[in-house]
Amino acid sequence: MVISKQLTLQTKGNGDTHDLTPTVERAVGESGVRGGVVTLFVIGSTAGLTTIEFEPGAVADLQTAFERIAPRGGEYQHHLRWGDDNGHAHVRAALLGPSLSVPFVDGRLTLGTWQQIILVDFDTRPRRREVVAQIVGE
Amino acid sequence: MVISKQLTLQTKGNGDTHDLTPTVERAVGESGVRGGVVTLFVIGSTAGLTTIEFEPGAVADLQTAFERIAPRGGEYQHHLRWGDDNGHAHVRAALLGPSLSVPFVDGRLTLGTWQQIILVDFDTRPRRREVVAQIVGE
Amino acid sequence: MVISKQLTLQTKGNGDTHDLTPTVERAVGESGVRGGVVTLFVIGSTAGLTTIEFEPGAVADLQTAFERIAPRGGEYQHHLRWGDDNGHAHVRAALLGPSLSVPFVDGRLTLGTWQQIILVDFDTRPRRREVVAQIVGE
Repeated sequence: MVISKQLTLQTKGNGDTHDLTPTVERAVGESGVRGGVVTLFVIGSTAGLTTIEFEPGAVADLQTAFERIAPRGGEYQHHLRWGDDNGHAHVRAALLGPSLSVPFVDGRLTLGTWQQIILVDFDTRPRRREVVAQIVGE
Repeated sequence: MVISKQLTLQTKGNGDTHDLTPTVERAVGESGVRGGVVTLFVIGSTAGLTTIEFEPGAVADLQTAFERIAPRGGEYQHHLRWGDDNGHAHVRAALLGPSLSVPFVDGRLTLGTWQQIILVDFDTRPRRREVVAQIVGE
Repeated sequence: MVISKQLTLQTKGNGDTHDLTPTVERAVGESGVRGGVVTLFVIGSTAGLTTIEFEPGAVADLQTAFERIAPRGGEYQHHLRWGDDNGHAHVRAALLGPSLSVPFVDGRLTLGTWQQIILVDFDTRPRRREVVAQIVGE
Protein backbone atom coordinates (compact mmCIF):
# COMPACT_ATOMS: atom_id res chain seq x y z
CA MET A 1 0.00 0.00 0.00
CA VAL A 2 1.38 3.37 -1.06
CA ILE A 3 -0.03 6.72 0.03
CA SER A 4 1.47 9.99 -1.24
CA LYS A 5 1.16 13.22 0.66
CA GLN A 6 2.68 16.57 -0.15
CA LEU A 7 3.67 18.87 2.72
CA THR A 8 4.05 22.57 2.00
CA LEU A 9 5.80 25.15 4.12
CA GLN A 10 7.04 28.69 3.85
CA THR A 11 10.62 29.34 4.99
CA LYS A 12 12.74 32.44 5.53
CA GLY A 13 15.84 30.83 3.94
CA ASN A 14 19.37 31.44 5.31
CA GLY A 15 19.35 28.29 7.45
CA ASP A 16 15.74 28.62 8.59
CA THR A 17 14.92 25.30 10.27
CA HIS A 18 11.44 23.82 10.63
CA ASP A 19 10.20 20.96 12.77
CA LEU A 20 8.19 18.71 10.43
CA THR A 21 7.36 16.11 13.08
CA PRO A 22 3.72 17.08 13.78
CA THR A 23 2.93 17.32 10.07
CA VAL A 24 4.53 13.96 9.28
CA GLU A 25 2.78 12.31 12.24
CA ARG A 26 -0.54 13.63 10.99
CA ALA A 27 0.14 12.45 7.42
CA VAL A 28 0.95 8.95 8.66
CA GLY A 29 -2.07 8.92 10.96
CA GLU A 30 -4.47 10.02 8.21
CA SER A 31 -3.06 7.46 5.76
CA GLY A 32 -4.55 4.57 7.70
CA VAL A 33 -1.33 2.61 7.13
CA ARG A 34 -0.35 0.97 10.42
CA GLY A 35 3.21 -0.21 9.86
CA GLY A 36 5.83 0.76 7.30
CA VAL A 37 8.20 3.51 6.29
CA VAL A 38 7.55 7.14 5.46
CA THR A 39 10.12 8.41 2.97
CA LEU A 40 10.45 12.18 3.11
CA PHE A 41 11.98 13.99 0.17
CA VAL A 42 12.44 17.73 -0.21
CA ILE A 43 12.04 18.98 -3.76
CA GLY A 44 14.84 21.35 -4.76
CA SER A 45 18.60 21.45 -4.33
CA THR A 46 19.13 24.07 -1.60
CA ALA A 47 17.39 22.42 1.37
CA GLY A 48 17.90 19.20 3.31
CA LEU A 49 16.32 16.89 5.87
CA THR A 50 17.60 15.21 9.03
CA THR A 51 16.67 14.76 12.69
CA ILE A 52 17.89 16.78 15.67
CA GLU A 53 16.85 17.73 19.18
CA PHE A 54 14.78 20.69 18.02
CA GLU A 55 15.82 23.46 20.38
CA PRO A 56 17.41 26.78 19.32
CA GLY A 57 20.85 25.90 20.69
CA ALA A 58 21.38 22.69 18.73
CA VAL A 59 19.86 24.26 15.61
CA ALA A 60 22.34 27.17 15.84
CA ASP A 61 25.24 24.77 16.45
CA LEU A 62 24.38 22.89 13.26
CA GLN A 63 24.55 26.16 11.31
CA THR A 64 27.99 26.87 12.79
CA ALA A 65 29.25 23.52 11.54
CA PHE A 66 27.88 24.21 8.07
CA GLU A 67 29.64 27.58 8.12
CA ARG A 68 32.89 25.65 8.69
CA ILE A 69 32.16 23.19 5.87
CA ALA A 70 30.89 25.68 3.29
CA PRO A 71 31.24 29.29 4.47
CA ARG A 72 28.69 31.74 3.20
CA GLY A 73 31.36 34.31 2.29
CA GLY A 74 33.53 31.80 0.41
CA GLU A 75 34.21 31.65 -3.30
CA TYR A 76 31.99 29.35 -5.31
CA GLN A 77 32.27 28.25 -8.93
CA HIS A 78 28.48 28.20 -8.97
CA HIS A 79 28.51 32.00 -8.54
CA LEU A 80 30.98 32.59 -11.34
CA ARG A 81 28.94 30.48 -13.75
CA TRP A 82 25.44 31.62 -12.91
CA GLY A 83 25.71 34.96 -11.10
CA ASP A 84 24.05 33.30 -8.11
CA ASP A 85 24.86 33.95 -4.47
CA ASN A 86 23.82 30.59 -3.03
CA GLY A 87 26.76 28.28 -3.77
CA HIS A 88 27.11 27.47 -0.08
CA ALA A 89 23.43 26.48 -0.02
CA HIS A 90 23.91 23.95 -2.81
CA VAL A 91 26.93 22.40 -1.09
CA ARG A 92 25.26 22.22 2.32
CA ALA A 93 22.07 20.71 0.90
CA ALA A 94 23.98 18.06 -1.06
CA LEU A 95 25.86 17.07 2.11
CA LEU A 96 22.81 16.92 4.35
CA GLY A 97 20.80 15.11 1.70
CA PRO A 98 17.23 15.52 0.44
CA SER A 99 15.75 12.28 1.78
CA LEU A 100 14.98 10.78 5.17
CA SER A 101 13.27 7.46 5.84
CA VAL A 102 11.43 7.02 9.12
CA PRO A 103 9.81 3.73 10.16
CA PHE A 104 6.45 3.67 11.91
CA VAL A 105 4.87 0.91 13.97
CA ASP A 106 1.21 0.80 15.07
CA GLY A 107 0.74 4.12 13.33
CA ARG A 108 3.50 5.88 15.32
CA LEU A 109 6.86 7.19 14.11
CA THR A 110 9.78 5.48 15.85
CA LEU A 111 11.43 8.76 16.88
CA GLY A 112 13.12 9.35 20.20
CA THR A 113 11.54 11.78 22.66
CA TRP A 114 14.12 14.46 21.93
CA GLN A 115 14.44 13.69 18.23
CA GLN A 116 12.53 15.75 15.70
CA ILE A 117 12.39 15.67 11.89
CA ILE A 118 13.72 18.93 10.48
CA LEU A 119 13.94 20.71 7.17
CA VAL A 120 16.84 23.18 6.87
CA ASP A 121 16.45 25.75 4.11
CA PHE A 122 19.93 26.90 3.10
CA ASP A 123 18.85 29.19 0.27
CA THR A 124 19.50 32.91 0.50
CA ARG A 125 15.87 33.99 0.22
CA PRO A 126 12.46 32.94 1.52
CA ARG A 127 11.14 29.86 -0.26
CA ARG A 128 7.93 27.91 -0.47
CA ARG A 129 9.02 24.31 0.06
CA GLU A 130 7.37 21.08 -0.97
CA VAL A 131 8.21 17.86 0.87
CA VAL A 132 6.89 14.58 -0.49
CA ALA A 133 5.86 12.08 2.19
CA GLN A 134 5.66 8.68 0.57
CA ILE A 135 4.06 6.20 2.95
CA VAL A 136 4.70 2.54 2.11
CA GLY A 137 3.33 -0.17 4.36
CA GLU A 138 0.28 -2.16 5.30
CA MET B 1 4.82 -7.22 3.62
CA VAL B 2 6.27 -5.32 6.57
CA ILE B 3 8.33 -6.88 9.34
CA SER B 4 9.60 -4.76 12.24
CA LYS B 5 12.62 -5.74 14.27
CA GLN B 6 14.32 -3.83 17.03
CA LEU B 7 18.08 -4.17 17.44
CA THR B 8 19.59 -3.28 20.81
CA LEU B 9 23.22 -2.57 21.57
CA GLN B 10 25.33 -1.14 24.34
CA THR B 11 27.88 1.50 23.36
CA LYS B 12 30.69 3.31 25.15
CA GLY B 13 29.80 6.68 23.56
CA ASN B 14 32.50 9.17 22.46
CA GLY B 15 32.50 7.96 18.87
CA ASP B 16 32.19 4.27 19.69
CA THR B 17 31.45 2.56 16.38
CA HIS B 18 29.65 -0.76 15.97
CA ASP B 19 29.34 -3.04 12.95
CA LEU B 20 25.62 -3.83 12.65
CA THR B 21 25.97 -5.97 9.52
CA PRO B 22 25.65 -9.44 11.09
CA THR B 23 22.64 -8.38 13.15
CA VAL B 24 20.89 -6.80 10.17
CA GLU B 25 21.64 -9.82 7.98
CA ARG B 26 20.12 -12.08 10.61
CA ALA B 27 17.04 -9.86 10.96
CA VAL B 28 16.45 -9.95 7.20
CA GLY B 29 17.07 -13.70 7.06
CA GLU B 30 14.65 -14.44 9.89
CA SER B 31 11.94 -12.21 8.37
CA GLY B 32 11.38 -14.59 5.49
CA VAL B 33 11.13 -11.62 3.12
CA ARG B 34 13.18 -12.40 0.01
CA GLY B 35 13.46 -9.05 -1.78
CA GLY B 36 12.98 -5.50 -0.62
CA VAL B 37 14.54 -2.78 1.50
CA VAL B 38 15.55 -2.75 5.14
CA THR B 39 15.26 0.76 6.55
CA LEU B 40 17.45 1.20 9.61
CA PHE B 41 16.70 4.06 11.98
CA VAL B 42 18.54 4.86 15.20
CA ILE B 43 16.31 6.26 17.93
CA GLY B 44 17.84 9.34 19.57
CA SER B 45 19.62 12.46 18.37
CA THR B 46 23.26 11.78 19.26
CA ALA B 47 24.05 8.74 17.07
CA GLY B 48 24.05 8.09 13.33
CA LEU B 49 24.23 5.36 10.71
CA THR B 50 26.25 4.89 7.53
CA THR B 51 28.48 2.34 5.82
CA ILE B 52 32.27 2.12 5.90
CA GLU B 53 35.07 -0.39 5.48
CA PHE B 54 34.94 -1.48 9.10
CA GLU B 55 38.59 -1.51 10.13
CA PRO B 56 40.08 0.58 12.95
CA GLY B 57 41.97 2.91 10.60
CA ALA B 58 38.99 4.12 8.56
CA VAL B 59 36.86 4.33 11.71
CA ALA B 60 39.48 6.58 13.37
CA ASP B 61 39.78 8.70 10.22
CA LEU B 62 36.05 9.34 10.25
CA GLN B 63 36.32 10.60 13.84
CA THR B 64 39.10 12.96 12.79
CA ALA B 65 36.87 14.46 10.12
CA PHE B 66 34.04 14.92 12.64
CA GLU B 67 36.50 16.65 14.96
CA ARG B 68 37.16 19.13 12.14
CA ILE B 69 33.45 19.67 11.46
CA ALA B 70 32.28 19.93 15.08
CA PRO B 71 35.20 19.89 17.54
CA ARG B 72 34.53 18.38 20.92
CA GLY B 73 36.19 21.30 22.73
CA GLY B 74 34.25 23.96 20.78
CA GLU B 75 31.58 26.31 22.07
CA TYR B 76 28.01 25.17 21.63
CA GLN B 77 24.76 27.05 22.18
CA HIS B 78 23.30 23.74 23.27
CA HIS B 79 25.61 23.79 26.31
CA LEU B 80 24.69 27.31 27.31
CA ARG B 81 20.99 26.54 27.16
CA TRP B 82 20.91 23.13 28.77
CA GLY B 83 24.11 22.72 30.77
CA ASP B 84 24.92 19.74 28.54
CA ASP B 85 28.36 18.77 27.26
CA ASN B 86 27.33 16.98 24.08
CA GLY B 87 26.66 19.77 21.59
CA HIS B 88 29.20 18.30 19.18
CA ALA B 89 27.36 14.98 19.38
CA HIS B 90 24.07 16.56 18.29
CA VAL B 91 25.71 18.31 15.34
CA ARG B 92 27.63 15.21 14.21
CA ALA B 93 24.55 13.00 14.46
CA ALA B 94 22.39 15.44 12.50
CA LEU B 95 25.00 15.55 9.74
CA LEU B 96 25.51 11.79 9.51
CA GLY B 97 21.77 11.16 9.71
CA PRO B 98 19.68 8.63 11.64
CA SER B 99 18.47 6.51 8.74
CA LEU B 100 20.00 4.15 6.20
CA SER B 101 18.15 2.13 3.57
CA VAL B 102 19.75 -1.06 2.31
CA PRO B 103 18.22 -3.17 -0.47
CA PHE B 104 18.27 -6.96 -0.32
CA VAL B 105 17.83 -9.48 -3.11
CA ASP B 106 17.24 -13.22 -2.61
CA GLY B 107 17.46 -12.61 1.12
CA ARG B 108 20.92 -11.02 0.95
CA LEU B 109 21.93 -7.43 1.61
CA THR B 110 23.49 -5.77 -1.45
CA LEU B 111 26.60 -4.61 0.42
CA GLY B 112 30.10 -4.66 -1.02
CA THR B 113 32.65 -7.07 0.42
CA TRP B 114 34.45 -4.27 2.29
CA GLN B 115 31.33 -2.31 3.14
CA GLN B 116 29.75 -2.68 6.57
CA ILE B 117 26.74 -1.01 8.18
CA ILE B 118 27.85 1.02 11.20
CA LEU B 119 26.31 2.89 14.09
CA VAL B 120 28.44 5.72 15.48
CA ASP B 121 27.53 6.84 18.98
CA PHE B 122 28.67 10.45 19.39
CA ASP B 123 27.27 10.95 22.89
CA THR B 124 29.63 11.66 25.78
CA ARG B 125 28.62 8.66 27.88
CA PRO B 126 27.78 4.97 27.41
CA ARG B 127 24.32 4.48 25.94
CA ARG B 128 21.93 1.63 25.31
CA ARG B 129 20.87 2.12 21.68
CA GLU B 130 17.78 0.95 19.86
CA VAL B 131 17.84 0.63 16.09
CA VAL B 132 14.58 -0.08 14.26
CA ALA B 133 14.97 -2.40 11.26
CA GLN B 134 11.87 -2.00 9.11
CA ILE B 135 11.81 -4.69 6.44
CA VAL B 136 9.51 -3.94 3.51
CA GLY B 137 9.29 -6.36 0.61
CA GLU B 138 7.85 -9.61 -0.62
CA MET C 1 5.61 -5.13 -5.52
CA VAL C 2 9.42 -5.13 -5.59
CA ILE C 3 11.52 -4.73 -8.74
CA SER C 4 15.32 -4.85 -8.56
CA LYS C 5 17.50 -3.19 -11.16
CA GLN C 6 21.26 -2.89 -11.23
CA LEU C 7 22.80 0.20 -12.80
CA THR C 8 26.42 0.01 -13.94
CA LEU C 9 28.72 2.89 -14.73
CA GLN C 10 32.39 3.53 -15.31
CA THR C 11 33.98 6.38 -13.38
CA LYS C 12 37.35 8.13 -13.44
CA GLY C 13 37.56 8.29 -9.63
CA ASN C 14 38.99 11.33 -7.79
CA GLY C 15 35.62 12.96 -7.26
CA ASP C 16 34.21 12.07 -10.68
CA THR C 17 30.50 12.88 -10.46
CA HIS C 18 27.78 11.29 -12.61
CA ASP C 19 24.17 12.30 -13.14
CA LEU C 20 22.13 9.12 -12.60
CA THR C 21 18.75 10.79 -13.16
CA PRO C 22 18.02 9.55 -16.71
CA THR C 23 19.03 5.99 -15.83
CA VAL C 24 16.90 5.95 -12.67
CA GLU C 25 13.93 7.47 -14.52
CA ARG C 26 14.21 4.74 -17.15
CA ALA C 27 14.46 2.00 -14.51
CA VAL C 28 11.32 3.26 -12.78
CA GLY C 29 9.49 3.65 -16.08
CA GLU C 30 10.36 0.12 -17.25
CA SER C 31 9.34 -1.39 -13.90
CA GLY C 32 5.68 -0.67 -14.52
CA VAL C 33 5.32 0.40 -10.87
CA ARG C 34 3.30 3.63 -10.79
CA GLY C 35 3.78 4.91 -7.25
CA GLY C 36 6.34 4.15 -4.58
CA VAL C 37 9.96 4.69 -3.64
CA VAL C 38 13.16 3.85 -5.48
CA THR C 39 15.95 3.15 -3.02
CA LEU C 40 19.35 3.66 -4.61
CA PHE C 41 22.38 2.06 -3.00
CA VAL C 42 25.96 2.21 -4.24
CA ILE C 43 27.93 -0.95 -3.60
CA GLY C 44 31.37 -0.21 -2.13
CA SER C 45 32.74 2.13 0.52
CA THR C 46 34.43 4.88 -1.50
CA ALA C 47 31.48 6.40 -3.36
CA GLY C 48 28.28 8.12 -2.29
CA LEU C 49 24.91 9.36 -3.53
CA THR C 50 22.99 12.60 -3.13
CA THR C 51 21.18 15.22 -5.22
CA ILE C 52 22.54 18.52 -6.53
CA GLU C 53 21.96 21.01 -9.30
CA PHE C 54 24.13 19.13 -11.77
CA GLU C 55 26.27 21.86 -13.30
CA PRO C 56 30.09 21.96 -13.19
CA GLY C 57 30.22 24.86 -10.72
CA ALA C 58 28.17 23.28 -7.96
CA VAL C 59 29.88 19.93 -8.52
CA ALA C 60 33.31 21.59 -8.08
CA ASP C 61 32.12 23.47 -4.99
CA LEU C 62 31.06 20.21 -3.38
CA GLN C 63 34.56 18.83 -3.95
CA THR C 64 36.06 21.91 -2.28
CA ALA C 65 33.94 21.30 0.81
CA PHE C 66 35.04 17.66 0.94
CA GLU C 67 38.66 18.82 0.67
CA ARG C 68 38.03 20.88 3.83
CA ILE C 69 36.40 17.97 5.66
CA ALA C 70 38.86 15.24 4.63
CA PRO C 71 41.83 16.65 2.69
CA ARG C 72 43.38 14.39 0.12
CA GLY C 73 46.90 15.16 1.35
CA GLY C 74 46.08 14.53 5.02
CA GLU C 75 47.29 11.72 7.24
CA TYR C 76 45.02 8.73 7.49
CA GLN C 77 45.20 5.72 9.79
CA HIS C 78 43.74 3.72 6.93
CA HIS C 79 46.96 4.32 4.98
CA LEU C 80 49.23 3.24 7.81
CA ARG C 81 47.30 0.03 8.31
CA TRP C 82 46.73 -1.02 4.71
CA GLY C 83 49.28 0.84 2.56
CA ASP C 84 46.32 2.43 0.76
CA ASP C 85 46.13 6.01 -0.51
CA ASN C 86 42.36 6.49 -0.36
CA GLY C 87 41.66 7.25 3.31
CA HIS C 88 39.99 10.53 2.36
CA ALA C 89 37.72 8.60 -0.03
CA HIS C 90 36.49 6.33 2.76
CA VAL C 91 35.76 9.26 5.05
CA ARG C 92 33.99 11.29 2.36
CA ALA C 93 31.87 8.34 1.25
CA ALA C 94 30.82 7.50 4.82
CA LEU C 95 29.74 11.12 5.35
CA LEU C 96 27.81 11.44 2.10
CA GLY C 97 26.22 8.03 2.56
CA PRO C 98 25.62 5.11 0.18
CA SER C 99 21.83 5.29 -0.01
CA LEU C 100 19.23 7.69 -1.36
CA SER C 101 15.47 7.17 -1.40
CA VAL C 102 13.44 8.99 -4.03
CA PRO C 103 9.63 8.84 -4.18
CA PHE C 104 7.81 8.58 -7.49
CA VAL C 105 4.19 9.36 -8.30
CA ASP C 106 2.39 8.38 -11.54
CA GLY C 107 5.64 6.86 -12.69
CA ARG C 108 7.64 10.08 -12.28
CA LEU C 109 10.41 10.87 -9.79
CA THR C 110 9.51 13.77 -7.50
CA LEU C 111 12.71 15.71 -8.22
CA GLY C 112 12.91 19.46 -8.65
CA THR C 113 13.72 20.88 -12.09
CA TRP C 114 17.27 21.74 -11.04
CA GLN C 115 17.79 18.71 -8.83
CA GLN C 116 19.62 15.68 -10.17
CA ILE C 117 20.60 12.36 -8.58
CA ILE C 118 24.38 12.06 -8.49
CA LEU C 119 26.99 9.46 -7.71
CA VAL C 120 30.34 10.84 -6.52
CA ASP C 121 33.25 8.45 -6.83
CA PHE C 122 35.88 9.47 -4.27
CA ASP C 123 38.30 6.63 -4.94
CA THR C 124 41.75 7.39 -6.30
CA ARG C 125 41.42 5.33 -9.46
CA PRO C 126 38.84 4.59 -12.16
CA ARG C 127 36.15 2.21 -10.93
CA ARG C 128 33.29 0.23 -12.40
CA ARG C 129 30.38 1.05 -10.08
CA GLU C 130 27.21 -0.89 -9.39
CA VAL C 131 24.17 0.91 -8.04
CA VAL C 132 21.17 -1.12 -6.90
CA ALA C 133 17.80 0.48 -7.68
CA GLN C 134 15.21 -1.20 -5.50
CA ILE C 135 11.73 -0.15 -6.62
CA VAL C 136 9.01 -0.75 -4.03
CA GLY C 137 5.44 0.27 -4.77
CA GLU C 138 2.27 -0.60 -6.58
